[in-house]
Amino acid sequence: MDLETLTHKSGEWLKGQGPESDIVISSRIRLARNLAQYPFLSRADDRVRVEIEESLGQKLIDLPLKKPLSYFKVHTLENIDRQLLVERQLISRELSDNHGSRGVVLSDEENVSIMVNEEDHLRMQVIHSGLALDECWNEIDRIDDLIESEVTYAFSQQLGYLTACPTNVGTGIRVSVMLHLPALVVTKEIQKVFQALHKISLAVRGLYGEGSQAMGDFYQISNQVTLGKTEEQLIQQVKEVVPRIIFYERQARTALVKDNREGLHDQISRAYGILKNAQTISSEETMHLLSSVRMGINLGLIDDLEIPTVNELFIHTQPAHLQKIKGTPLESGERNVARASYLRQRLSGRHPGEVN
Amino acid sequence: MDLETLTHKSGEWLKGQGPESDIVISSRIRLARNLAQYPFLSRADDRVRVEIEESLGQKLIDLPLKKPLSYFKVHTLENIDRQLLVERQLISRELSDNHGSRGVVLSDEENVSIMVNEEDHLRMQVIHSGLALDECWNEIDRIDDLIESEVTYAFSQQLGYLTACPTNVGTGIRVSVMLHLPALVVTKEIQKVFQALHKISLAVRGLYGEGSQAMGDFYQISNQVTLGKTEEQLIQQVKEVVPRIIFYERQARTALVKDNREGLHDQISRAYGILKNAQTISSEETMHLLSSVRMGINLGLIDDLEIPTVNELFIHTQPAHLQKIKGTPLESGERNVARASYLRQRLSGRHPGEVN
Repeated sequence: MDLETLTHKSGEWLKGQGPESDIVISSRIRLARNLAQYPFLSRADDRVRVEIEESLGQKLIDLPLKKPLSYFKVHTLENIDRQLLVERQLISRELSDNHGSRGVVLSDEENVSIMVNEEDHLRMQVIHSGLALDECWNEIDRIDDLIESEVTYAFSQQLGYLTACPTNVGTGIRVSVMLHLPALVVTKEIQKVFQALHKISLAVRGLYGEGSQAMGDFYQISNQVTLGKTEEQLIQQVKEVVPRIIFYERQARTALVKDNREGLHDQISRAYGILKNAQTISSEETMHLLSSVRMGINLGLIDDLEIPTVNELFIHTQPAHLQKIKGTPLESGERNVARASYLRQRLSGRHPGEVN
Repeated sequence: MDLETLTHKSGEWLKGQGPESDIVISSRIRLARNLAQYPFLSRADDRVRVEIEESLGQKLIDLPLKKPLSYFKVHTLENIDRQLLVERQLISRELSDNHGSRGVVLSDEENVSIMVNEEDHLRMQVIHSGLALDECWNEIDRIDDLIESEVTYAFSQQLGYLTACPTNVGTGIRVSVMLHLPALVVTKEIQKVFQALHKISLAVRGLYGEGSQAMGDFYQISNQVTLGKTEEQLIQQVKEVVPRIIFYERQARTALVKDNREGLHDQISRAYGILKNAQTISSEETMHLLSSVRMGINLGLIDDLEIPTVNELFIHTQPAHLQKIKGTPLESGERNVARASYLRQRLSGRHPGEVN
C-alpha cells in the first residue's frame, strides 16, 4: 500500500454496504493502550518516543493478521500526506499534529488502523461499513490479544487499562457509529435526539471527531464512559440506541416525503444539478449538497448515482485529497475550482483522468 | 396554420439570427390605422364592430403578400388560445381582453401580424430577428400600401393618420427593438441607460410591452413621439441609439468577465444546472436563469446549447404554452412542475414527447 494509490481508491468502510447502510455510514471501535515499561507520552522525551515507535512499529507490522499491513512513520510524511490520512479517518488530527517519532499501521482495506504515540502509546481502531459493531469488536479484540501477547500493557487490577487521559481509563474503549441524519436536521428534531443521548452519557460529534462540526449532516454517536462497565456492556448501550435514532430518521424522511414530496424532490434535484455544474464550490457547500443527494438516492428520487460514489465524494473533495488528485498544492480558491471540476467529472460518469 | 402547430414551433423572430443578435432579440414596427367610414372603436357599437371585422378580415386574408396568411376571429378563440397568441407577441393583451368582434391575420413565419379592432381598427406589425428595422419598415410600408389600395384610412392633411389615442396620431408608428441586457442589469448600469433614453423621448418597456416587468433582463426600446417627424426620422432615432446600448452592454460583459470570470462562469453554470434539474420552478425564476444561460452562450461559457433554443424557452415556458403543450389546464403549482419537466426535457437534448 502506498499513499498515491490510496488517493484514488476508497476504504472498505465507505462501500455503503452492511445493515442499515442508508443511515449508518460506519461502525468503529478503538482501544487505547499503553506499555507498562514506558512513561505516558506527556512524560516521555524524544528518545523514549523513538524507542516506543521503533519497537512497536516492528511488532505491529509482524502481527499475524489475515490482512496485509503497511507501516508509515508519520513524522517522516509530508504535511499533505498526513492530512490525507486524517481525511480518510485513518489517523487522528492529534497524531498528525503531534511532534516526535510516531507511526501508523494500516490494513490495505483500511479497516484496521493502529496508531503509535498518539495520546497513548497505542490507539487501535477497526472500522466497518454499516451497523457492524460486533464485527468490529471481534476483530479489534483479537488484534488486542495478539499485541498483548507481544508486550505488557499498563494495567491496574482495580482500574483496568491505564491511559494518558483519565476519561479513557478502564476499558480504553470508544464505540462509535457514524450516522447520516439529514431528515432530522431539516425537521430540526436533531436537537431532541442530542438531548436524549446526552442524558444517557453518549457523546455526539461531527465527521472528524472531537471539536469538528457536523458537516454533511453526519453525526458520530459514541460512549463517554469507559470505566465500571465491560466492553460488551458499552457496545450494547450503543447497539441499543442506534436503532432508535435510525427509526426517528426514517420517520422524519417519511414525513418529509408525505408533507411535500415535490418540494423535497426539487431541493434534492437542484442540489444534484449544482454539484454537476458548479465551476467553484466550497467544501461546506459540497458536504451540504452531497447530503441532500445521498438522502435522494436512499429515497429513490435519484436513480443514476450510487451511495458508494457519494460516500467517496465526501472524502475525495476534502483539501488534501483534491491536492493529491491534482498533483499540486492549491490555495483555498484554487481548491474550490478543483473541487467543482472533480465533482463535474465524477458525477458526469466520466473518469477524473479523462478531462481536465 | 393552426394554433396546435403553433404551440410546438417558434416564430422566425426567435431564430436568434440577424445583426447583433447576441443582444438584439428582435426588431418590430407597428402602424396604427383607422377606416374613414367608421367611428373610432370607443364610439362603435357591436354591430359596427362586426361590420369592420368582417369586411377587413376578408380584405386582409386576400392581400397579395408572398407569405401565406391565416385569419383568426379572436372573439371565437378559447381563453388559452388568446393567451398563447399574447405570449408569442402576435397579439396584444388589449386585443385578447377586448370585447366584441375582433380578429388577427398572421403569416406562417409569424413575422406579420395585423390586428382588427384592437384600440384602432387596424394595428399591423412586422417583426424580425436581430437588428433589422429597415427590413421591418420595407415590409410594413408595403403592407400598409396594399391595404390602403383597398380601403380609405382616416387621415388629416394637417395631423396625418388619425388614431383612437392621441399619442399615436401622425405617423401611427411604433418602432421598437427588444434587447437582452443582463450585464447592464448585474452591474446596475441599466438605470443610467434608462435615464438617457427618457431624455430623448424613447420609452423602455418589459418583454410584454406597456406595464409588463422586465423579466429575463429583456427591454423594449421604442419611440414615444409619432407626430411632427417622418417615419424614417423616427426609425433613424432608434437605429442610432441601439448601437450605443449594445456597446454599453458589451462593455459591461467584458468587465464582468475580466473582474471575475470564474464567479461569472460559476453563476451561469449553476443557472444551467438548476434549469436542467429542478422539479418545480416559477416563471420568474425560469426567466432569470435563462437570462444567465443566454449570456453564458454568448460569452462562450456554455457550448452545448444554442441561442434559438433559449429564445424559444422564454416563450414556451409561459403559462398558456405549457398548458397547450401538456394538453390540459394547469393550476399555478402544476404549471411550475410542468415547466420544470419541460425544461429538463428540452435541455437534456431529448424531444419533449419522449419522456414525461
